[in-house]
Amino acid sequence: VTPYAVIRKKRDGGRLSRSEMKEFFGAFLRDEVADYQVSALLMAIFLRGMDDAELGHLVGVMLESGAVLDLGTVPGVKVDKHSTGGVGDKVSLVLAPLVSACGVPVPMMSGRGLGHTGGTVDKLESIPGFRIGLDLEAFRRQLERIGCALITQTPEIAPLDRRLYALRDVTGTVESIPLIASSIMSKKLAEGIDALVLDVKVGSGAFLPERAAAEQLARTMIAIGAAHGRRVTALLTAMDRPLGHAIGNALEVEEAVELLRGAGPADVRELTLGLAAEMLVLGRAADDRAAGLVLAGAALDDGRALETMARVIEAQGGNPGVLDDPAVLPQAPVRHVLESDRDGIVTSMDVRAIGLAAVALGAGRTRADSTVDPAVGLHLTLRPGDRVARGEPVGTVHAREEEAARRAAAAVLAAVEISDRAATPLPLVLGRLA
Amino acid sequence: VTPYAVIRKKRDGGRLSRSEMKEFFGAFLRDEVADYQVSALLMAIFLRGMDDAELGHLVGVMLESGAVLDLGTVPGVKVDKHSTGGVGDKVSLVLAPLVSACGVPVPMMSGRGLGHTGGTVDKLESIPGFRIGLDLEAFRRQLERIGCALITQTPEIAPLDRRLYALRDVTGTVESIPLIASSIMSKKLAEGIDALVLDVKVGSGAFLPERAAAEQLARTMIAIGAAHGRRVTALLTAMDRPLGHAIGNALEVEEAVELLRGAGPADVRELTLGLAAEMLVLGRAADDRAAGLVLAGAALDDGRALETMARVIEAQGGNPGVLDDPAVLPQAPVRHVLESDRDGIVTSMDVRAIGLAAVALGAGRTRADSTVDPAVGLHLTLRPGDRVARGEPVGTVHAREEEAARRAAAAVLAAVEISDRAATPLPLVLGRLA
Repeated sequence: VTPYAVIRKKRDGGRLSRSEMKEFFGAFLRDEVADYQVSALLMAIFLRGMDDAELGHLVGVMLESGAVLDLGTVPGVKVDKHSTGGVGDKVSLVLAPLVSACGVPVPMMSGRGLGHTGGTVDKLESIPGFRIGLDLEAFRRQLERIGCALITQTPEIAPLDRRLYALRDVTGTVESIPLIASSIMSKKLAEGIDALVLDVKVGSGAFLPERAAAEQLARTMIAIGAAHGRRVTALLTAMDRPLGHAIGNALEVEEAVELLRGAGPADVRELTLGLAAEMLVLGRAADDRAAGLVLAGAALDDGRALETMARVIEAQGGNPGVLDDPAVLPQAPVRHVLESDRDGIVTSMDVRAIGLAAVALGAGRTRADSTVDPAVGLHLTLRPGDRVARGEPVGTVHAREEEAARRAAAAVLAAVEISDRAATPLPLVLGRLA
Repeated sequence: VTPYAVIRKKRDGGRLSRSEMKEFFGAFLRDEVADYQVSALLMAIFLRGMDDAELGHLVGVMLESGAVLDLGTVPGVKVDKHSTGGVGDKVSLVLAPLVSACGVPVPMMSGRGLGHTGGTVDKLESIPGFRIGLDLEAFRRQLERIGCALITQTPEIAPLDRRLYALRDVTGTVESIPLIASSIMSKKLAEGIDALVLDVKVGSGAFLPERAAAEQLARTMIAIGAAHGRRVTALLTAMDRPLGHAIGNALEVEEAVELLRGAGPADVRELTLGLAAEMLVLGRAADDRAAGLVLAGAALDDGRALETMARVIEAQGGNPGVLDDPAVLPQAPVRHVLESDRDGIVTSMDVRAIGLAAVALGAGRTRADSTVDPAVGLHLTLRPGDRVARGEPVGTVHAREEEAARRAAAAVLAAVEISDRAATPLPLVLGRLA
């Protein structure tokens, strides 16, 4: 099988076999197939698609390109969560210690923020001293000891995915459901998990805003999991408004601590508990979701989740004082109160634009190699359906400089539609797939 | 406009503007857009197609990437012919001097053989001393003086096409009608021609064997010509059998000389006259095709075409003695008579396989950088519809060695279907498009 024949086969709508993909991508990693041949194949995959069997093979080849963790020494059913990315989504910071506190080990490798969405790793790094770069051995040992570890993807994991993603990023082949799904699943399966819960976002702040596309992505990832013998369930959840109030790294850690203390915004708590219930069922700590909700709610309210988080932070070199006093987190020098510029009802929010306003403050990155400012961000209390009055405070901008704060405030207000029409916000959880 | 945006636009089925293509491909030639981005765009073009307006722009950008000849100093309407490639097609060697002898200048740049098809430039090089590498200035001067020049494409012509072709060749994006049509037309329009006749082959030896695809290619090239103000007509012609009897470089030159002397196989003569009539009408030397046929037939029979060919050969350093005595051409040491291995009717011929048998003898090349043996080839007299008897001689293999001759003989016989069914060969000219 020549690389040329593989490209032509997919170009003409054929199905690639496991051995064809193994040869093609193996040769790519050995630099025997050129970038320009891979990008032609990626475009053919983008336009022709891939069926479930092909995707199972592609993920297998990606997995085999690097290390696959063996967590056999960690007792229990290992379960992780993956979100397709949103604005204000600090769920992982609460969910991982919470589920672990309920007896289900959570080996969580997360990404950095890119584009309008934030990343768990950036949030964790705003905790003074927190090390997100454990090696695989340290990761495994911490899971054995604490049942929870929160790290960044290590370079040994799915190097083929990393090389393909770099090419996709510059050749217009990112927004392909098969390619997105195989990229996510190869990294998650390499963690050594037994099961996975997906949080697939829908709405203006989601990577795929349309429900139908989000659902297709969820189904594709569930099928890949099944092909690799892993149980995967998915919640479709609302991203037509930010999740919680805080947007920005230290601000979100502060809000996560509130949640770990049994308080915090209701929507983040509800989503965290919903995802926890899924994970507890998959991890055989609860018989059904109702039981899982009860278990998880108790572990939040009685401080067990907080205690697990303290152990994780300590184990990873961070200052656990963050759990008692948010003042140990970086603070932005400028605080600018956001006031509504109109009377009316919040009809809709352009969450992507709000995310980008936070990025512009320094809370995120527009290029993979730029750094983030942990202190800056937004605190937004208004939501679709809220009635607001002109001049009413609806949030705070946390910024480095006055000018940046003013620009962010203007961008946020422009992204919020206030009118006299009724709002039709999405339900927090739109659906569940398994 | 970023390269990324151009790729995405075509990926999503959009139409690229002239300025988008100019920027994208201009940056490619300056090495500011990478090969892997271009190959992704080529695959998107392959799968999404291009409309006539886009193709006109693409050809314009290809033309502008290099030199465009100004033949204003050559009096008359300059007309060239392009064939999509076949087996045994020596028409250009006769047609160019013939049309020129009738008063229409023919500035002909030809290619080398690749794959199963032969190339005019390889055939010309079998004439001792013949130089196919004139520079553009020498080409123009010879056209002024003789009205005919037969050369290879110069490196100044459409460098963008050359770079794109090299990428297409290794990324599975060759067999795209828009890409084939734009590649051909950019090179032809750069010659400084006023009009063009296309010989688009149909059948087992054609690059696109199906009539529908051949017709679409012809229409696409006609549309590109129209977008650039050039009249283009096309004949769809049979390539379900070789053209004439000779296949191989010196052997085809010998057959072309027979034709220039008013003799030679009937099919090559008929096709040459048909294409000449088209060119004479386009070149305003004949009012209609019937008049063109008469003019061209006379110029073949009274020796004027032969005389023009003598001047061309002399001007380009070749030995014009080839026109009197074929023994000045390279001769193969081994001649192996081909005998039919069956009684019956020739039902069909796999012309591609026959072309590849000639290539295996050394008459063509499988890689762009291999050399050809001018002396070797095939002389085949059987045609679909012929009744043959077992043991009857049906041709001769001209080879370097006995073993190669035997292999070629076996390959040719295997490529000819002899049965008791009736044959349904294609008519020599299947249709005309303008």
